[in-house]
Amino acid sequence: MRILGIDPGYAIVGFGVVSYHGADFTPLEYGAITTEAGTRFAARLTAIYDDLDFLLKRFQPDCIAIERLYFTSNQKTVIDVAQARGVIVLCAEQHQIPMYEYTPLQVKQAVVGYGKAEKRQVMDMTRRILKLAQIPKPDDAADALALAICHGHCATGVQLQKRIIKAGDTI
Amino acid sequence: MRILGIDPGYAIVGFGVVSYHGADFTPLEYGAITTEAGTRFAARLTAIYDDLDFLLKRFQPDCIAIERLYFTSNQKTVIDVAQARGVIVLCAEQHQIPMYEYTPLQVKQAVVGYGKAEKRQVMDMTRRILKLAQIPKPDDAADALALAICHGHCATGVQLQKRIIKAGDTI
Repeated sequence: MRILGIDPGYAIVGFGVVSYHGADFTPLEYGAITTEAGTRFAARLTAIYDDLDFLLKRFQPDCIAIERLYFTSNQKTVIDVAQARGVIVLCAEQHQIPMYEYTPLQVKQAVVGYGKAEKRQVMDMTRRILKLAQIPKPDDAADALALAICHGHCATGVQLQKRIIKAGDTI
Repeated sequence: MRILGIDPGYAIVGFGVVSYHGADFTPLEYGAITTEAGTRFAARLTAIYDDLDFLLKRFQPDCIAIERLYFTSNQKTVIDVAQARGVIVLCAEQHQIPMYEYTPLQVKQAVVGYGKAEKRQVMDMTRRILKLAQIPKPDDAADALALAICHGHCATGVQLQKRIIKAGDTI
């Protein structure tokens, strides 16, 4: 199963593609879609849409894991992050790729085994699970890879979460 | 100048198309894009995108006026409304239609001449300006028409607001 993790944002969208077979994760690609401050917001949304469309065509993931947004998130930017997330959800749906959302707590539980784990612990465990020499950069890419790992664990029956897009045959 | 007003939402997206020449507004079409509760959220976003795409092709507006979202809006739904708004902004940008955002206060000032006007006063003035026999239904369509009127007034030089999409030649 090929999983794309996405950490949504409008300035930086972290992404991480992993292959998951048996109990083994293999990182295929990770990084970030970035948009420049000062650019018109609509142009930033369009850039995110176009870049994600490219990623979906290139990597053809079986499913997507994305962070759930809360009103208690960063209050100054949450509306703009949500607008970008809407564009991401639309693009995934147009590609008919099932999408699953997870809270930061669920990611910590799935990756570290402890819901109150520190961000650093999650990143280091992500590095170990993916057998990487260094913690992936930027942080948004590491977060996206952790989301992909979380879905890999959850999709194998432990704690499948609320689906926001239809389930594929893969899970 | 043909203006499309949009009142964003994920269950109901109000829209209103008006023609503005001289100081005269003529309503061309108004109504709402609706999505059913219980439908997957991604499918709702896709329906909004597809229906708006249809409206833009059909009416070819010169510009769009849309309500600005605030964190102090309805706190339970603002994240989902923002996700739908992101899809709307994307669609407009893909059609290269300039979009302008206005606050409810600005709409009240432009339509009624008083920023603290009651919702009913705004609706009744919208009806009068458009020479309609009845207040347009649903409320979301009336709100969208008020946004279009607001932009018509503002675009003629009084109080042009922050542009979120590039300006066209029309203003």
